[in-house]
Amino acid sequence: MTVKKTLRLNPQDNVVVATADLPTGTPIEGDVVAVARVPRSHKVATRPITKGEPIRKFGQIIGFASTDIIPGEWVHEKNVTMGEDFERDYAFAAEARPKEILLPGETPAFFEGFRRADGRSGTRNFIGILSSVNCSATAVDYIAEEINRSGILDDYPDIDGIVALPHSQGCGMAGKGEAFDVLSRTQWGYASHPNFAATLLVGLGCEVFQIPRMKETYQIAEGEHFQSLTIQETGGTRKAVEAGVAKIKEMLPFVARSRREPISASELSLALQCGGSDGYSGLTANPALGVAADMLVRQGGTAILSETPEIYGAEHLLTRRAESVEVGQKIVDLIAWWDEYTTRNGGEMNNNPSPGNKAGGLTTILEKSLGAVAKGGNSTLRGVYRYAERIDRKGFVYMDTPGYDPVAATGQVAGGANILCFTTGRGSAYGGKPVPSIKLATNNELYARMTEDMDINCGDVIDGVSLEDKGREIFNVILDVASGKKSKSELLGYGRHEFVPWQIGAVM
Amino acid sequence: MTVKKTLRLNPQDNVVVATADLPTGTPIEGDVVAVARVPRSHKVATRPITKGEPIRKFGQIIGFASTDIIPGEWVHEKNVTMGEDFERDYAFAAEARPKEILLPGETPAFFEGFRRADGRSGTRNFIGILSSVNCSATAVDYIAEEINRSGILDDYPDIDGIVALPHSQGCGMAGKGEAFDVLSRTQWGYASHPNFAATLLVGLGCEVFQIPRMKETYQIAEGEHFQSLTIQETGGTRKAVEAGVAKIKEMLPFVARSRREPISASELSLALQCGGSDGYSGLTANPALGVAADMLVRQGGTAILSETPEIYGAEHLLTRRAESVEVGQKIVDLIAWWDEYTTRNGGEMNNNPSPGNKAGGLTTILEKSLGAVAKGGNSTLRGVYRYAERIDRKGFVYMDTPGYDPVAATGQVAGGANILCFTTGRGSAYGGKPVPSIKLATNNELYARMTEDMDINCGDVIDGVSLEDKGREIFNVILDVASGKKSKSELLGYGRHEFVPWQIGAVM
Ligand SMILES: [Ca+2]
Ligand SMILES: [Ca+2]
Ligand SMILES: [Ca+2]
Ligand SMILES: [Ca+2]
Ligand SMILES: [Ca+2]
Repeated sequence: MTVKKTLRLNPQDNVVVATADLPTGTPIEGDVVAVARVPRSHKVATRPITKGEPIRKFGQIIGFASTDIIPGEWVHEKNVTMGEDFERDYAFAAEARPKEILLPGETPAFFEGFRRADGRSGTRNFIGILSSVNCSATAVDYIAEEINRSGILDDYPDIDGIVALPHSQGCGMAGKGEAFDVLSRTQWGYASHPNFAATLLVGLGCEVFQIPRMKETYQIAEGEHFQSLTIQETGGTRKAVEAGVAKIKEMLPFVARSRREPISASELSLALQCGGSDGYSGLTANPALGVAADMLVRQGGTAILSETPEIYGAEHLLTRRAESVEVGQKIVDLIAWWDEYTTRNGGEMNNNPSPGNKAGGLTTILEKSLGAVAKGGNSTLRGVYRYAERIDRKGFVYMDTPGYDPVAATGQVAGGANILCFTTGRGSAYGGKPVPSIKLATNNELYARMTEDMDINCGDVIDGVSLEDKGREIFNVILDVASGKKSKSELLGYGRHEFVPWQIGAVM
Repeated sequence: MTVKKTLRLNPQDNVVVATADLPTGTPIEGDVVAVARVPRSHKVATRPITKGEPIRKFGQIIGFASTDIIPGEWVHEKNVTMGEDFERDYAFAAEARPKEILLPGETPAFFEGFRRADGRSGTRNFIGILSSVNCSATAVDYIAEEINRSGILDDYPDIDGIVALPHSQGCGMAGKGEAFDVLSRTQWGYASHPNFAATLLVGLGCEVFQIPRMKETYQIAEGEHFQSLTIQETGGTRKAVEAGVAKIKEMLPFVARSRREPISASELSLALQCGGSDGYSGLTANPALGVAADMLVRQGGTAILSETPEIYGAEHLLTRRAESVEVGQKIVDLIAWWDEYTTRNGGEMNNNPSPGNKAGGLTTILEKSLGAVAKGGNSTLRGVYRYAERIDRKGFVYMDTPGYDPVAATGQVAGGANILCFTTGRGSAYGGKPVPSIKLATNNELYARMTEDMDINCGDVIDGVSLEDKGREIFNVILDVASGKKSKSELLGYGRHEFVPWQIGAVM
């Protein structure tokens, strides 16, 4: 028995990836053999590709043949060009397809979740305690601790717990503009998240981020779902904690009335994340997650791709897949915003493959970015959202976020994600609350070394497990975790410090 | 007996402040009576002031008479100008004085502190656990909790505890430049702080803020004082926590060898802070704290003024007091930096008195800023420091920080402050670790309402307690708290979330 030494990322591709150094004559696929040495993790042609024809990897265009290429030939800089026409042409919606539907043999999937009054569905039944400002961060921690210490939650087995969400912002900032709006959307996105049956918002009192203003902006009425208080009005820290604990205790019977029930997978909103990528990310975990994302989209669910610095310069990948010019243009607009954002902060965006990337087999910026974009699958792009904006479209969508894991995930969760998959090659330990995070190792060595933090090993894709099988495995774990099975980071108790709203503006 | 209805802020002043509405004829000082009605919190002349002569409040110039003013006259916009010549002239070092020395009758003061190997002195004997990145924030919390839960600290009564310092940064940022340097200085300032006998730095492994690089930058050798580990190298969260707990346990005997001993007050470095100011801040708590700061400076100690947005436009207050042109120029330079910083972030600096400020008796930008600057006293400015830079001069110094309380205090502590005084009118609940915070209420009502959070009531200055007496009270509390007496925020347990390094750059 011979171990397969190449990896096919998509049936439409005209290249496969070498999973080991391939000497001349190594069998590739069918009759194709390597016509010259192909280094590990580089591409080899499986069909004749004539000059000017697209090179397809992940089913998507990563460049064009700069000369005729024969089957079995190493495909890299010497015979691939980005294509100047391509670079200039966003080809808005050129590859848009009709609404995704179940494939023959696929059946509707369900999870056990919580239906909320606003029509959305939760995967957890938490009570949230938010702070309007860092000045009340310690108080929200104390309220949660006091409830936990009291033992009262033992009487409410249908409540998943109390989640305190301290953060660093809320004052020393302008009271209007982009930075304020981002914080405002994030706070409201969490306060109204379907994984919270109810939330308590605790302020100091004199901060820039005023609770009464937030209530007015989002038309929030205090009641069973939402309560607030400030330390200054209550008369200090101890009294505020006491008042907060009393408010939470009043919420418990209401929150405990929520019970899990079968809900269509179309109600799942999957945040796609990666952090600590390695050379395997684009070959194993990311494309396998892409398979799962496509499955979810066919079920009518939502898959949210983010991390704009990783698509920068390769926005053509998404503009082509946009369902309309309008949706595609939003991608172009946010790329322009990032140029301005990094320039004004004295930096610059650069996502081009480095010499190390090229040595590792990444030929073009499109190919490099596809390593990350692959986790979004191949579905048509249905919407583009600002950071922490409420996501109101089903299907594959994009949310603008930084690449930095806690900040990116915070935006996606604020937008309504109720499940999160996180691929990692170096070994991220990320976990957030109130949304469970499923962590996918890109390689066997990492999985073995950090098994207690990793939910799924995608390293075996290199050993021959198909991306389709791995994608199905991920999809099933998504349903299990959405239904209440604890992810590794939940078992470890993560989620105390991972609420990190994007701080865009000046700290004053 | 008549209650005094005016407040003299400095013996040199030619005005006093009305603490109540003063009808015509109200006795002011000596023979002086109000020649017309003076509204509460406004200024009244106590001496003849000829046109062009400076108006002095807090002993400092707040403007110039635009017409001759007679004793008992209301001093406000109609008879005060900023003086264009003054505005254009920084008058570097015009009011510099020789090194401050003890006054007749003053004796050297001491506190009970911890002498450290690097020659500095601590006011607490903590072990610190820092995270290099948000990805290891939860791990540092767990290490601290596990040590606390184990009960092992019961065997070490000379150790004040374990302080975990999670934060939100460390990755998704440029690996060089201003933002990186600020984080780097802050981390090292805490890791080497004299209130920590030893510190453990925990990373994830693949973050931008690399531990090996920090060790190289600051020439840190691992040993009894400093240890590090990463989650990725250790094999995941649980093992990293286990390894961290083991390292802390090894540190305990070394840390417990530190004992309090009498140390000169010249080793105290006092961070001056205000947050949630009100109309009383500039009349009671701030000038009283200024008296205490001057006392400390005469003892050979250090007093650190900060919060640049509050001196913006009134930098003349500090340039005149600078000990040299070079020191004064640094103030001017950082004002220019703030212009650039806020402009690039789409905002602007504006510290001018608002209509509400003017109605409240604040006539000029100098006077408004002096309300905050007053807490720095009247000593000569000996040095100007960047955010989180190690403070290496004694006397009155300035550190550039935002006004936002947790960020400002984090910079001062990183610079080496070992005691902090925080004035508040609205009622801040701030408390940080490892440096104790003493909170000063500006008014009686606040002190009564939030007594459990307030260490000192300065509201009684309005009732007739002199600023000198109040300043002495503050100075004595500083010595007590520096010697181990717990401040209110320490009793409440603050310090879990208040380590907030200034995030200056783009999040990517
Ligand atoms: Ca990534
Ligand atoms: Ca990321
Ligand atoms: Ca915490
Ligand atoms: Ca202030
Ligand atoms: Ca402040």
